[in-house]
Amino acid sequence: MGVSDSAKSQAEVLIQALPYIQKWSGAIFVIKYGGAAMSDASAAQVMQDLVLMHCVGIRPVLVHGGGPEISDLMKRVGKQPQFVDGLRVTDAETMELVEMALTGKTNPRLVGLIQQQGGRAVGISGKDGGLIRARKLASAVDLGFVGEVASINPDVVYAALRGGYIPVVSPVGLGIDGATYNLNADFAAGALAGALGAQKFILMTDVPGVLSDTESPDSLISELTREQAQRMLDTGRVSGGMIPKLQACLHALEKGCPRAHILDGRIPHALLIEVFTDSGIGTMIR
Amino acid sequence: MGVSDSAKSQAEVLIQALPYIQKWSGAIFVIKYGGAAMSDASAAQVMQDLVLMHCVGIRPVLVHGGGPEISDLMKRVGKQPQFVDGLRVTDAETMELVEMALTGKTNPRLVGLIQQQGGRAVGISGKDGGLIRARKLASAVDLGFVGEVASINPDVVYAALRGGYIPVVSPVGLGIDGATYNLNADFAAGALAGALGAQKFILMTDVPGVLSDTESPDSLISELTREQAQRMLDTGRVSGGMIPKLQACLHALEKGCPRAHILDGRIPHALLIEVFTDSGIGTMIR
Amino acid sequence: MGVSDSAKSQAEVLIQALPYIQKWSGAIFVIKYGGAAMSDASAAQVMQDLVLMHCVGIRPVLVHGGGPEISDLMKRVGKQPQFVDGLRVTDAETMELVEMALTGKTNPRLVGLIQQQGGRAVGISGKDGGLIRARKLASAVDLGFVGEVASINPDVVYAALRGGYIPVVSPVGLGIDGATYNLNADFAAGALAGALGAQKFILMTDVPGVLSDTESPDSLISELTREQAQRMLDTGRVSGGMIPKLQACLHALEKGCPRAHILDGRIPHALLIEVFTDSGIGTMIR
Amino acid sequence: MGVSDSAKSQAEVLIQALPYIQKWSGAIFVIKYGGAAMSDASAAQVMQDLVLMHCVGIRPVLVHGGGPEISDLMKRVGKQPQFVDGLRVTDAETMELVEMALTGKTNPRLVGLIQQQGGRAVGISGKDGGLIRARKLASAVDLGFVGEVASINPDVVYAALRGGYIPVVSPVGLGIDGATYNLNADFAAGALAGALGAQKFILMTDVPGVLSDTESPDSLISELTREQAQRMLDTGRVSGGMIPKLQACLHALEKGCPRAHILDGRIPHALLIEVFTDSGIGTMIR
Amino acid sequence: MGVSDSAKSQAEVLIQALPYIQKWSGAIFVIKYGGAAMSDASAAQVMQDLVLMHCVGIRPVLVHGGGPEISDLMKRVGKQPQFVDGLRVTDAETMELVEMALTGKTNPRLVGLIQQQGGRAVGISGKDGGLIRARKLASAVDLGFVGEVASINPDVVYAALRGGYIPVVSPVGLGIDGATYNLNADFAAGALAGALGAQKFILMTDVPGVLSDTESPDSLISELTREQAQRMLDTGRVSGGMIPKLQACLHALEKGCPRAHILDGRIPHALLIEVFTDSGIGTMIR
Amino acid sequence: MGVSDSAKSQAEVLIQALPYIQKWSGAIFVIKYGGAAMSDASAAQVMQDLVLMHCVGIRPVLVHGGGPEISDLMKRVGKQPQFVDGLRVTDAETMELVEMALTGKTNPRLVGLIQQQGGRAVGISGKDGGLIRARKLASAVDLGFVGEVASINPDVVYAALRGGYIPVVSPVGLGIDGATYNLNADFAAGALAGALGAQKFILMTDVPGVLSDTESPDSLISELTREQAQRMLDTGRVSGGMIPKLQACLHALEKGCPRAHILDGRIPHALLIEVFTDSGIGTMIR
Repeated sequence: MGVSDSAKSQAEVLIQALPYIQKWSGAIFVIKYGGAAMSDASAAQVMQDLVLMHCVGIRPVLVHGGGPEISDLMKRVGKQPQFVDGLRVTDAETMELVEMALTGKTNPRLVGLIQQQGGRAVGISGKDGGLIRARKLASAVDLGFVGEVASINPDVVYAALRGGYIPVVSPVGLGIDGATYNLNADFAAGALAGALGAQKFILMTDVPGVLSDTESPDSLISELTREQAQRMLDTGRVSGGMIPKLQACLHALEKGCPRAHILDGRIPHALLIEVFTDSGIGTMIR
Repeated sequence: MGVSDSAKSQAEVLIQALPYIQKWSGAIFVIKYGGAAMSDASAAQVMQDLVLMHCVGIRPVLVHGGGPEISDLMKRVGKQPQFVDGLRVTDAETMELVEMALTGKTNPRLVGLIQQQGGRAVGISGKDGGLIRARKLASAVDLGFVGEVASINPDVVYAALRGGYIPVVSPVGLGIDGATYNLNADFAAGALAGALGAQKFILMTDVPGVLSDTESPDSLISELTREQAQRMLDTGRVSGGMIPKLQACLHALEKGCPRAHILDGRIPHALLIEVFTDSGIGTMIR
Repeated sequence: MGVSDSAKSQAEVLIQALPYIQKWSGAIFVIKYGGAAMSDASAAQVMQDLVLMHCVGIRPVLVHGGGPEISDLMKRVGKQPQFVDGLRVTDAETMELVEMALTGKTNPRLVGLIQQQGGRAVGISGKDGGLIRARKLASAVDLGFVGEVASINPDVVYAALRGGYIPVVSPVGLGIDGATYNLNADFAAGALAGALGAQKFILMTDVPGVLSDTESPDSLISELTREQAQRMLDTGRVSGGMIPKLQACLHALEKGCPRAHILDGRIPHALLIEVFTDSGIGTMIR
Repeated sequence: MGVSDSAKSQAEVLIQALPYIQKWSGAIFVIKYGGAAMSDASAAQVMQDLVLMHCVGIRPVLVHGGGPEISDLMKRVGKQPQFVDGLRVTDAETMELVEMALTGKTNPRLVGLIQQQGGRAVGISGKDGGLIRARKLASAVDLGFVGEVASINPDVVYAALRGGYIPVVSPVGLGIDGATYNLNADFAAGALAGALGAQKFILMTDVPGVLSDTESPDSLISELTREQAQRMLDTGRVSGGMIPKLQACLHALEKGCPRAHILDGRIPHALLIEVFTDSGIGTMIR
Repeated sequence: MGVSDSAKSQAEVLIQALPYIQKWSGAIFVIKYGGAAMSDASAAQVMQDLVLMHCVGIRPVLVHGGGPEISDLMKRVGKQPQFVDGLRVTDAETMELVEMALTGKTNPRLVGLIQQQGGRAVGISGKDGGLIRARKLASAVDLGFVGEVASINPDVVYAALRGGYIPVVSPVGLGIDGATYNLNADFAAGALAGALGAQKFILMTDVPGVLSDTESPDSLISELTREQAQRMLDTGRVSGGMIPKLQACLHALEKGCPRAHILDGRIPHALLIEVFTDSGIGTMIR
Repeated sequence: MGVSDSAKSQAEVLIQALPYIQKWSGAIFVIKYGGAAMSDASAAQVMQDLVLMHCVGIRPVLVHGGGPEISDLMKRVGKQPQFVDGLRVTDAETMELVEMALTGKTNPRLVGLIQQQGGRAVGISGKDGGLIRARKLASAVDLGFVGEVASINPDVVYAALRGGYIPVVSPVGLGIDGATYNLNADFAAGALAGALGAQKFILMTDVPGVLSDTESPDSLISELTREQAQRMLDTGRVSGGMIPKLQACLHALEKGCPRAHILDGRIPHALLIEVFTDSGIGTMIR
């Protein structure tokens, strides 16, 4: 009757999303996004996914990383990035560069992308409103201003949510000593998911998820219980960058967040596929 | 990477709907649905469309008709429906049957369908909370309790919207004389769209829309200005059941509703196609 | 001094009502009204009593029956009402007629009477907003769509109360299976009284109350404890229609409603006499 | 059926009051009460009337006088009350006694009576929250601290109304100079009625109302227009204490209060008769 | 640079007050002020201190005494004040004078002083809104209308605080018998501090505080625990007027107020010094 | 009596501040702070002043500059800052550095100082929530991403104020083209003062104010009308950096802000002296 098949199938897709929209209405999702996956095209798509979630009643909170931006700025000022066990050695000058890269470059870039797509976002540093209180991370070697989360006061995030904004959080923290600390973004996001009572904690990475055979991308594990995930860590069945990611997920679950996801941020609209379709994607731990 | 093409294209469809979801967030749409189009399968689909709209932030208000149900009940009690100029002759006994069919059968059926699909609906008779004050329709022949809208007090609809419900309205009205009147559902819906300051008034019918050649379904007119629609009425270029439909649309536009639509309710998910896709469908008058 | 004695005694009556008005300010009363008592003149008076209660700060919730209207409609379509143990055999066609009579005739009639007297009322079907979830009543003989209350979600009633309306509830319920069920109005009202935390549950009947000697209207028992009422049921000292009424009262008391009343609806303004005067009337169970 | 005729006629009276309760729901009435009429028994009855009004949704604001209490206290401390043109000569010492009698005796007495009858009242001095700003009344003879209303800030009265209290106001005012002024209670009440947008201003006196023949109590005038009342003042057809009362009424009407009443406070429950019955009483000016 | 040293040191003082302003933001302080200390100049200063506290976010509640005003009024009407164990013998006539002096003189004087300094105050009698329910104090000799606090209903104080006013409370109470009772202001204030959950209870007196040697003003004790204060009472180490003051403080502490202070009201701005500076002043009991 | 003179004079200072605290309660002040004046010690003091203002009911909004930090970062990455007519030539790479220095260094430093002193602050980039929409500044020479304010949407600032935070704003803006623009902080602050309806716009500089003789610091002009300030600009009586400052003040006044101040940020607690004492400081334009 003059209506294209394409229009009809579009309508069908919307209808298939309905139960998910109903299910997640009002829920807070904490999404960690960062690292190599954060190319310009990818970032624009991920921000679009957040705007769509926000429009249909979900309350997404974004925590970003920024390793490449930090290293890039360091190199430009002639400093060589150094890492010990995957942690960046952070002297006072480096800390300043870290904060400039995270809070002054990555954060406003993501905020700008959301605003450009008709969304409403506010950047929030972990120092704003005392959001993240940090303390120096204990370690064998002195890593300088590498910190860990001491406590979370989520008031400033709630104020942003109440105002109808998507909070975009940069993972730095203020110490009792007044110093600024560099935090692991995965862990900071997991702690925030716990403190906010988020319904989901979603870690976007550049791998397909947890693999049973790290050599084979086809060996993706779709779902793990907390116990299974813990056992994989304990028995060394995961390795490299996946270890802290699984630990961050388990931390969020411990703090009361019921579901953690490790998603492949390289898949276009991975967030929408995970949240609004029947298709399994990545690994869910609960 | 293990994600089906279908999942990816589903995500694309959702993203294409985003600008429409943003545009209509918070808007009230008054939708008239009824008549022959209201088969069981169709009704379930239309109600599903309302639930989806509601979920993504639109505030739909449904006004239903019920001609076939009325005639059916009349026949069951042995009364022969009579019409003068398309209007049902409504003696006191018929009025009682009209109200039972509308408020006691069609209305709770639609409410039940919405509830079954996870939505929240409340049935509202035009008599509830003084919503529709009616008066006897002046006519050459005495049509009995056939009325027209005298005034609208939308408080009870707003109370339902504030409570998070989809209002489902049956088109009867209470006269100053305490009598109940049978109202033309298209007109009642148009008047309600005006009184509520609705962003859209959508008339679902069983024809493709306004045709420039009534013999040819391919001659659909996609868009009309108020002036053009009025001229078509004045010059007799529309006929039959389309006349009161166009008049109801013009009435809603006069009362301040900026857009009226005549849609083909036989197309599956016609509402979603109209509201959330780029595809034109039916006739829009503005 | 030019003021009539009648005016003075009117003032005295108002003053005598003062302590009762103070006592019940803000309280929810669930009132069951229906059956043979519901003649036109009587209904107008009872609705007036509700409007007065509402005006002075009480929040009445009306649940109505409609047996005679149902039977009347059945006969008009040529169906013979059948009862087993006082319960109406309700096949699918009958259920449709039941709903039309209750939700489409009795309910809007009562709403209209309240509106005509300057009150504000909304009709609420037990299906609206998922108010009453029902399930098929287990019984020796298959009674069809005769149901019992599975659960109550009073949100829609609270929304109506917040909006300043008197809710008028028709006693049907929606099953998980999507079917509509016919409910005993006395029981539905009692369950609603419990769910709403009503201060009073008032059952209006066409007998004086509980009698110690069923042959003698003078043997009215003014007050019973729950234990006494239970014992009367257990020992067969009540019979006929009074049995389910006492059971409904006991059900409301179990659910936390502190007082249940069985009143003679044939007495003009029985509600006002019970609520606002020193005169005892009917039977109170607490 | 065991219900006394008295109970039935009580119910009838309540029903007759219904239209008045509906009409005045939410309205503010400013009531001036004082003078010789304020005996113990009378005061208890008038306060009971206020409590009833309050219970059924009216928001009464009481302004009291206290001439006899003032004179009594003056005599007890050995001062002889002096009047010039009906106004009390008020030196500094007298002003102190005036305030003690009004704010420290009459006001808490009335508050106590309301509280004792289950109402909720707060005493408010015209000095509280800057309610009444006063200035020295210009006059031929120096009357000392006799003042007139310069401006009204009704915030403190609204705060009391919002809290659910009956405000009881003593008619003193604070000057810009920091001095306390003695105000005519009738005028202060009229000004307050205007500032609060009261629906009624009611002056309770110890005469039947405005008489066409001051010698004949039977010559009561039930209703006057503003123009008629003004003409009576202009042509000297009223005299003595009625002059300032009529003037206070006209002042309230000028400030926007639509109805002023002069009632005979000696009639038991005169307020209830005026407000809730069909009987005319006293004089209404509009 | 053209800025005086005085301006700079003013700024320094404000900065030194900052931690105290932060600490007490939103806190309720109940302050008892009265007796001989209440000269005109002193009262103006104390009221100014309250206005300043109010401005910076503290919510002060003032309870005043009025012994000298009462005795003065009694003498003016020719009655000789009599005391038994420091309690005023209060026959019916005396009670009337007490109430006039407290509620009609001292209270509006303090309210007026606050208003004159740009603050917002309301006088509240202990009878207003049922604030203080009193009962006759049991004693060997009949003291007449000398009462003690039976219960506190702080609603009317909260309404005043919500309205942005400083409540000024006169210490009288209403008995169940409808009689008015004269209360010890120190005790009434302590009870109010407990009922309001005040952060501080401050008793302003005309002595430096609790002395370890009552003969030596230099022997001021800055801080006492509850246990120490109780022991001083038990062992007779305090005497005279300090006994009831210490008892009132202990009463407030028992009711949950965490700190009680006895301050010398003769020191200018003693309240500000106690609340906003590092200087110790008076005795604190916790 | 054991209270030090110092404590007494502290109390006096607080009392002298009272009228100013009363006057500015609830007012929004937009304060521009930046440039050379922003040394560590100075910044800590200025932030303390903001915290104090906030505590006593003022709602300060801080806009900061960051020229030295920008130039410092540029030099560290080997870029030579270039200026044309006082405006920084800003190519794409420079813009990135500008944003990192402003939003990633200066802004969180100031937020951290406020938090460390017990205040509550949030950093807000001009891009957050679409706060500042910018467009390319038209100029003879292409200055790259140097922009001017196109429009202000203050919602995100109001959300921060409602949440009880001091907003700290970095002066960058988002163009319609999605590019980020470098804004003159003085002008951005003036525009924000206008959009927020601020009561005061305060520009903190490192000169004493507007001088009548630019060679003589003693020739400070305390107060200027808008007309006088405009004339000084028109006649060239101000020069250098003072020109854009005066222009920014005039811009704020045009947009409806009633008072603009140019203060010497080098004076300790200059803000407190200006706001809370009788001492004149700097230049006020109104």
